[in-house]
Amino acid sequence: MLQRDYQTQTCSIARALEIVGERWTLLILRNVFLGWRRFDEQQQQLGIARNVLASRLQRLLDEQILELRPYGERPVRHEYHLTEKGRALWPVLAELLQWGDRYAPEPAGPPRIFRHRECGGLMGAHCICERCGQWLDSEDVISELGPGARARRKGRAQRAARRAAPASA
Amino acid sequence: MLQRDYQTQTCSIARALEIVGERWTLLILRNVFLGWRRFDEQQQQLGIARNVLASRLQRLLDEQILELRPYGERPVRHEYHLTEKGRALWPVLAELLQWGDRYAPEPAGPPRIFRHRECGGLMGAHCICERCGQWLDSEDVISELGPGARARRKGRAQRAARRAAPASA
Repeated sequence: MLQRDYQTQTCSIARALEIVGERWTLLILRNVFLGWRRFDEQQQQLGIARNVLASRLQRLLDEQILELRPYGERPVRHEYHLTEKGRALWPVLAELLQWGDRYAPEPAGPPRIFRHRECGGLMGAHCICERCGQWLDSEDVISELGPGARARRKGRAQRAARRAAPASA
Repeated sequence: MLQRDYQTQTCSIARALEIVGERWTLLILRNVFLGWRRFDEQQQQLGIARNVLASRLQRLLDEQILELRPYGERPVRHEYHLTEKGRALWPVLAELLQWGDRYAPEPAGPPRIFRHRECGGLMGAHCICERCGQWLDSEDVISELGPGARARRKGRAQRAARRAAPASA
């Protein structure tokens, strides 16, 4: 490990946080789960310095949580994919998301909802499909924008339209 | 919120991490789940500066994740207890712990294991009791030291014994 923040601790939570507890790391992984696999997509989505993003991604490659896969030609480029070890972080992210939905909510509602790909049911607490009762792994769900994200987008569009309108209008 | 690290993000994971993503915060909560509820117990267990610990605990009180309850008399002292909002972080911690057990293991095995209080079964993946299949909340489990923690303790005791022995022995 590159650094050990919690070296006095004999604890698997501390060991997990040594790897994924740095600022931005869990949000970078969330983005890969959502399909933003390229450096520039990540950079645009997060709005962080390129060197910080590069350092976090390198750490995730070193830890074999992400792996590079080529895409395109001339030049060949690479995108970041989750390994099995990375995909196993899905329930950590899902539990954080559901806690945030409940205890730190957007005023308009959840920014993102998940549905069971197979039966269309909503993903409820602890990754259980509310319709069929199956435990849902990341590959079993499709994600949709929820009311919280739609309200934020509408607000941004309205502010942009006001800025674009002539001042005397 | 005192600070917003992730203010560009419309996301419940980001909102959750604004509250519990600071260094040490999840380990402080783990300690309260394990029954270390007093400032000095926390300080001794974590080995961090008292002002850092005090600031993290205050934030958790402000966010109503922890609450103070009095104990003792002359002087009355206080200890930290989880609120409902705090107890709802149990699955986040449990999933991090199980990921750490599997992908960042102690050589000797898990430092801590959890059993279903009612039937004695081990807590398996995603907080499901391996014996009876019930989803286990924090109040349903008792925790025991696992092989990883026992090996560490033994190592510490052996090193202490060697230090205590005369140099010529």
